[in-house]
Amino acid sequence: MIPLPTVLSDSTHGIMTHFGMVTVRITDDEGNEGLGYTYTVNAGSKAVACLIEEDIKPILLNADEDCIENLWQKSWWHLHFVGRGGIAAFAIAAVDVALWDLKARSFKTPLWKLMGGNNPKVKAYAGGIDLQMPIDQLLQQTQDNLAKGLKAIKMKVGREKLSEDIDRVRAVRELIGDDITFMVDANMIWPVDVAIQAARKMADYNIHWLEEPTNPDDITGYARIQREGGVPIAAGENFHNLEEFRHLISAEGVTFVEPDVATCGGITPWLKIARLAESYNLQVTSHGVHDLNLQLLAAIPNGSLLEIHGFGLERFLKNPITFVDGYTTASERPGHGVELDFELLAQYQTK
Amino acid sequence: MIPLPTVLSDSTHGIMTHFGMVTVRITDDEGNEGLGYTYTVNAGSKAVACLIEEDIKPILLNADEDCIENLWQKSWWHLHFVGRGGIAAFAIAAVDVALWDLKARSFKTPLWKLMGGNNPKVKAYAGGIDLQMPIDQLLQQTQDNLAKGLKAIKMKVGREKLSEDIDRVRAVRELIGDDITFMVDANMIWPVDVAIQAARKMADYNIHWLEEPTNPDDITGYARIQREGGVPIAAGENFHNLEEFRHLISAEGVTFVEPDVATCGGITPWLKIARLAESYNLQVTSHGVHDLNLQLLAAIPNGSLLEIHGFGLERFLKNPITFVDGYTTASERPGHGVELDFELLAQYQTK
Repeated sequence: MIPLPTVLSDSTHGIMTHFGMVTVRITDDEGNEGLGYTYTVNAGSKAVACLIEEDIKPILLNADEDCIENLWQKSWWHLHFVGRGGIAAFAIAAVDVALWDLKARSFKTPLWKLMGGNNPKVKAYAGGIDLQMPIDQLLQQTQDNLAKGLKAIKMKVGREKLSEDIDRVRAVRELIGDDITFMVDANMIWPVDVAIQAARKMADYNIHWLEEPTNPDDITGYARIQREGGVPIAAGENFHNLEEFRHLISAEGVTFVEPDVATCGGITPWLKIARLAESYNLQVTSHGVHDLNLQLLAAIPNGSLLEIHGFGLERFLKNPITFVDGYTTASERPGHGVELDFELLAQYQTK
Repeated sequence: MIPLPTVLSDSTHGIMTHFGMVTVRITDDEGNEGLGYTYTVNAGSKAVACLIEEDIKPILLNADEDCIENLWQKSWWHLHFVGRGGIAAFAIAAVDVALWDLKARSFKTPLWKLMGGNNPKVKAYAGGIDLQMPIDQLLQQTQDNLAKGLKAIKMKVGREKLSEDIDRVRAVRELIGDDITFMVDANMIWPVDVAIQAARKMADYNIHWLEEPTNPDDITGYARIQREGGVPIAAGENFHNLEEFRHLISAEGVTFVEPDVATCGGITPWLKIARLAESYNLQVTSHGVHDLNLQLLAAIPNGSLLEIHGFGLERFLKNPITFVDGYTTASERPGHGVELDFELLAQYQTK
């Protein structure tokens, strides 16, 4: 468990002080290495590590590392009875990212080019995890984010009273002016009727998207909120397989499709989700692990904003991403280019 | 990992020689005990145990064991980011079954009466896991099952050629005559078009249901198979939350709703799924752990057949269920009435 740089809060996960991280390193016969990782909130990191060690590792040892789709399918179906998502999707994701990194590094090409290569420049936004932050602090955080060079921000909503949310949204929009892209994230907290009300009220403040207004298991609820609320919906961070995205997308319940490469089963399904979204004329945004997601959004033609996630992983990275005029740029380093400082991380390692 | 009494085979899980089992015992201040368990196929048992130990146990210690719904919700949402199903649903199920058993035992009432109490007599069927069994052995198994007093049987389908399946189905129907209830189970193997063809051909043999004809993530596919194939569909063993059932049921993709209490999150969601099915005028059948499912089918008014599962858990039970004229009867013992022989199980324990 890794301590967060500051205490974070949202409507569903409460007060967060730590996050879990599980890393995977895979080496081929020539000595090339690939790095993958996933992360957890509140629970489950040991079970993810256990599943990789006990149930996925035997599939990988001495397998052909070039056949990633084949290894993905083998892992998915080997775990299917206890899987179809959940912890299995996290575990397979960490492995799949490592395999793609290994492949790109052995070709000495950046991942985003191996994946197709669209445009290394990706517009980024600061994802504030700030529901319980007093309003003056929220405004200060917003100013700090703009000072970093970001031109898009997101804040949490879902406080006890909707009027509090509206006051906070208004205050932030007044601070940032009309030209900054502005999103809100309810982290699943509202019933459908409240979400529709909220969307209608927030529409006055030119909200680019409303994220996870209600329980993501309520597909028809999402469709209603998007249709009746009149604000584009972002969702997907809690989906863990391709078909969950298909159901929400085909029901017209989402505009900004938001797979998390570290929790949706890895790069292999992430790309399928992105192509599915493209076929529906929808854009893909990201969740979490922005250093990995940057590579993926740079690869596809329908990439939207990259979330700069608030977990502070940059403390442990040799090359954290930087921003110029609201954009960040996928590196030319081979693979995903993320190098973790394992020496620094060692202090938080659990067995 | 517990060895199976005989090697089993189906179209998706391949050759199975062992299963995993995770048990939970919960004790209250007065010394009452509740027993819960779940099981795994191919993978995941250690991760399930790890999740219970690391992430659910702290929620339970010193909590009020009377508030099971509250503990269920706390566990579900604590695990939500890595959950919404998968291993989290297995882990929560084992705990939830233990809590309901504890409650019923402290009231000295059988679980099926505590749950409402409809009818202790439940019609049972033998669930053969026999895809690779030669046809003479398949017929022998069928005769053995009828000799045990069962009046309903199920066999696996999904062999390499559909014509082989049809030959086997015909042979079994010819053996059992018209009065035995007869189901088939494809374990998700077919594409939708093959499933529709198969259903149409099998309809000639008066098939009570066709189970899991295709990937359960394909909701619209299920609806098509049921509508165009003309055979009632059973599904649900791979669903791990209430809303997955809602989506399939509301899409008219299923007739026999089949939650597995050990893998759908426990008794708490199982009952909600049963009520949802009732509201759609559908019957509920079972999967796995028949000693537990018997209690639940005896509680509700819309219970269908109880699957007698082929994992051979009866070797480790003090009171395995028996059949008279096709029916089995829920016991009057307090709780679910299942007593595991932990001394006998100890030889298979892993750490």
